[in-house]
Amino acid sequence: MTQMDYARRGQATPQMEAVARKEGIPLKVLIDKVARGAVAIPANINHKSLDPEGVGEGLRTKINVNLGISRDCLNYDNELEKVDLALKLGAEAIMDLSSYGNTREFRRKVAEISPAMLGTVPMYDAIGFLEKDLENITVDEFFKVVEAHAEDGVDFMTIHAGMNRKTAERFKKNPRLMNIVSRGGSLLFAWMELTGNENPFYEHYDRLLDLLHKYDVTISLGDACRPGCINDATDAVQIEELITLGELTRAAWDKNVQVIVEGPGHMALDEIAANMKLQKKLCHGAPFYVLGPLVTDIAPGYDHITSAIGGAIAASAGADFLCYVTPAEHLRLPALEDVKEGIIASRIAAHAADVVKGVPGAREWDRRMSDARQKLDWETQFKEAIDPEKARAYRTSSAHDGQTCTMCGKICAVQTINKALAGERVSFK
Amino acid sequence: MTQMDYARRGQATPQMEAVARKEGIPLKVLIDKVARGAVAIPANINHKSLDPEGVGEGLRTKINVNLGISRDCLNYDNELEKVDLALKLGAEAIMDLSSYGNTREFRRKVAEISPAMLGTVPMYDAIGFLEKDLENITVDEFFKVVEAHAEDGVDFMTIHAGMNRKTAERFKKNPRLMNIVSRGGSLLFAWMELTGNENPFYEHYDRLLDLLHKYDVTISLGDACRPGCINDATDAVQIEELITLGELTRAAWDKNVQVIVEGPGHMALDEIAANMKLQKKLCHGAPFYVLGPLVTDIAPGYDHITSAIGGAIAASAGADFLCYVTPAEHLRLPALEDVKEGIIASRIAAHAADVVKGVPGAREWDRRMSDARQKLDWETQFKEAIDPEKARAYRTSSAHDGQTCTMCGKICAVQTINKALAGERVSFK
Repeated sequence: MTQMDYARRGQATPQMEAVARKEGIPLKVLIDKVARGAVAIPANINHKSLDPEGVGEGLRTKINVNLGISRDCLNYDNELEKVDLALKLGAEAIMDLSSYGNTREFRRKVAEISPAMLGTVPMYDAIGFLEKDLENITVDEFFKVVEAHAEDGVDFMTIHAGMNRKTAERFKKNPRLMNIVSRGGSLLFAWMELTGNENPFYEHYDRLLDLLHKYDVTISLGDACRPGCINDATDAVQIEELITLGELTRAAWDKNVQVIVEGPGHMALDEIAANMKLQKKLCHGAPFYVLGPLVTDIAPGYDHITSAIGGAIAASAGADFLCYVTPAEHLRLPALEDVKEGIIASRIAAHAADVVKGVPGAREWDRRMSDARQKLDWETQFKEAIDPEKARAYRTSSAHDGQTCTMCGKICAVQTINKALAGERVSFK
Repeated sequence: MTQMDYARRGQATPQMEAVARKEGIPLKVLIDKVARGAVAIPANINHKSLDPEGVGEGLRTKINVNLGISRDCLNYDNELEKVDLALKLGAEAIMDLSSYGNTREFRRKVAEISPAMLGTVPMYDAIGFLEKDLENITVDEFFKVVEAHAEDGVDFMTIHAGMNRKTAERFKKNPRLMNIVSRGGSLLFAWMELTGNENPFYEHYDRLLDLLHKYDVTISLGDACRPGCINDATDAVQIEELITLGELTRAAWDKNVQVIVEGPGHMALDEIAANMKLQKKLCHGAPFYVLGPLVTDIAPGYDHITSAIGGAIAASAGADFLCYVTPAEHLRLPALEDVKEGIIASRIAAHAADVVKGVPGAREWDRRMSDARQKLDWETQFKEAIDPEKARAYRTSSAHDGQTCTMCGKICAVQTINKALAGERVSFK
């Protein structure tokens, strides 16, 4: 039985209870959302260490951290340090994108220690470590990998089932500047081209759903055709796939498999809100998980910022789940410091959106900070800061008089106004 | 004669010619915009090194870098290094906010070497170096400082003329969490409270305009009541002042003095577009210069990001000029590395907006980058990056195979698709 099975029978689960408590919403309301598919609670029955989170309508915007071992970065300890950092900095999800080496051991280790939801993209694992030509990978091999991930306790899996022959046709008819930039999507497209077969996850979607249902794995419907540059955004290819993802959403719900839908990508700022609306309509209110969107292509080294801009707008227009982007995006696998910058930028975007969404408690956080600022209460400002260590380090790095900071010094506006309102003299002697 | 005088007579100036050329728009169109006040070309007749820029309707979004000596940071060389960095990184404006020490010598030095427009806030200088009680500063002293700045070649001056007795009354009647966070505004408010007098720049506005006209100084109407936290945004106090700024805009235009209007501040994401519209209406289409807006209060240490989010939205909704915010905001005077982070974040926001505004050439930049990405042409990617040094450093810091990067390695989507579309085998051996 999946969370959706229970919800549709009106039964609460411990996971639903935990989520309702964390979000500060009535359990009944949550059960209804899970039953409708408006909220997913990714919770693999084998993920024993999970502290469950809900993703979707009216809930706090969640963030995901990507990490994993690859051919070029085979240091398991490094990647485990990223897991620790992600947990410490409050990420609600970790995607293990390992594509090389002893992926199973690493994945099991993460599932064992991580209370955050665990996601994977089985295609990477299917292809990453195989020493064979792409066209020789069989349908059964693809499914074997999915089953292994399910057994290991993965809570949600990105599966590019919408990259079917029809989407591929649209892609060939509608030229794009960056073609397909989704790793999983590009591999499936190439496999389809080389074998002449239909996408195995699309062709055998029922088999896939049965497998996912068994472990209550949430399917995260991958957007193989997400735009890889602002030029390609909101084009025929992207929307064709989104329509299919909407159909696949309903098919999954018909089997009580929970769904998340993935989205762009790179996209000019003024297209984001329309895309969020489109996804919510075409995918029947399913939770939306976005990578970015990056609002410009020209800032490699700063794509945590380009994506924080897009992510904040996306989430305030309805996206439920943000995949972090680090400053290393487009340039290298992120190092630990990149992971940190990416997480904080993503949490800022999520919180800025939660303020707008009216998520319980969101505005109160800003209010507590502002109250401390007005009182020039620096310790409380540090405590309320999204990164207390960095805030403290900044302030202590420059000499100050204890009350004000070196930005304004003696002409500190807060101090001046506090004195003026108290009827005190304002002197600069 | 000011730029506006000339424009209203239909006469082109060398400054207008330079701006029209840079922006790629017809000179006649620009002259009309300057005549209407929709574009300002801040160009003090004494700023001989100026390479003029236009700020306003339909033009590229400009950015400003704040710097200056203060009681706590009296190192002139440090501040001059910031000037060099700002120029190197393409800032169109520099505001010298010096408030202590030998401000005149520093200001003249900046005017001498800076082709970027130069702005100041005379209030800081009036008060910063005076060793007297605030209430003892005379109206003539305020004006003496303005005249000194004008003589020195300052192109635009922030003057909080809207913080008059009426605005002060609104402020007292409508409690705010952060009160007044504008330095200049707080000082004028305190001066008014202590002396019982009207704001000297409001009371003697005509005298001020005559002075500014003489040197063609653009008045940047300061928003003393900009919200200092998201709680205070779009409140009665802010809007009261904005109405007054609209009246002052018209009064300045009546004397052919160019105008820029300043805006928020801290503001939840969903209020930004409405505020841009409100300013453009109430201020009759005058150029809008925004500080932020910061979309949340909780991220000291990362306010270049919170303001890049708000700035990108603001500029794409009509703001013309962004004041940079550094990671040091709220914590200390920025160091050189903070200035760099702030400038890049601000330029990203401005460019993301220019893409949306349809500014000539904006989308082409993204296209060139995407084209290089699709070809895995790394040298061109570095060349087109907003920070070529950082992009190159990231890539060269991790071992790669020359074609792909360590993010995806052998499963690089771009490589896979290029091969698949060329009908080549895709092998991971």
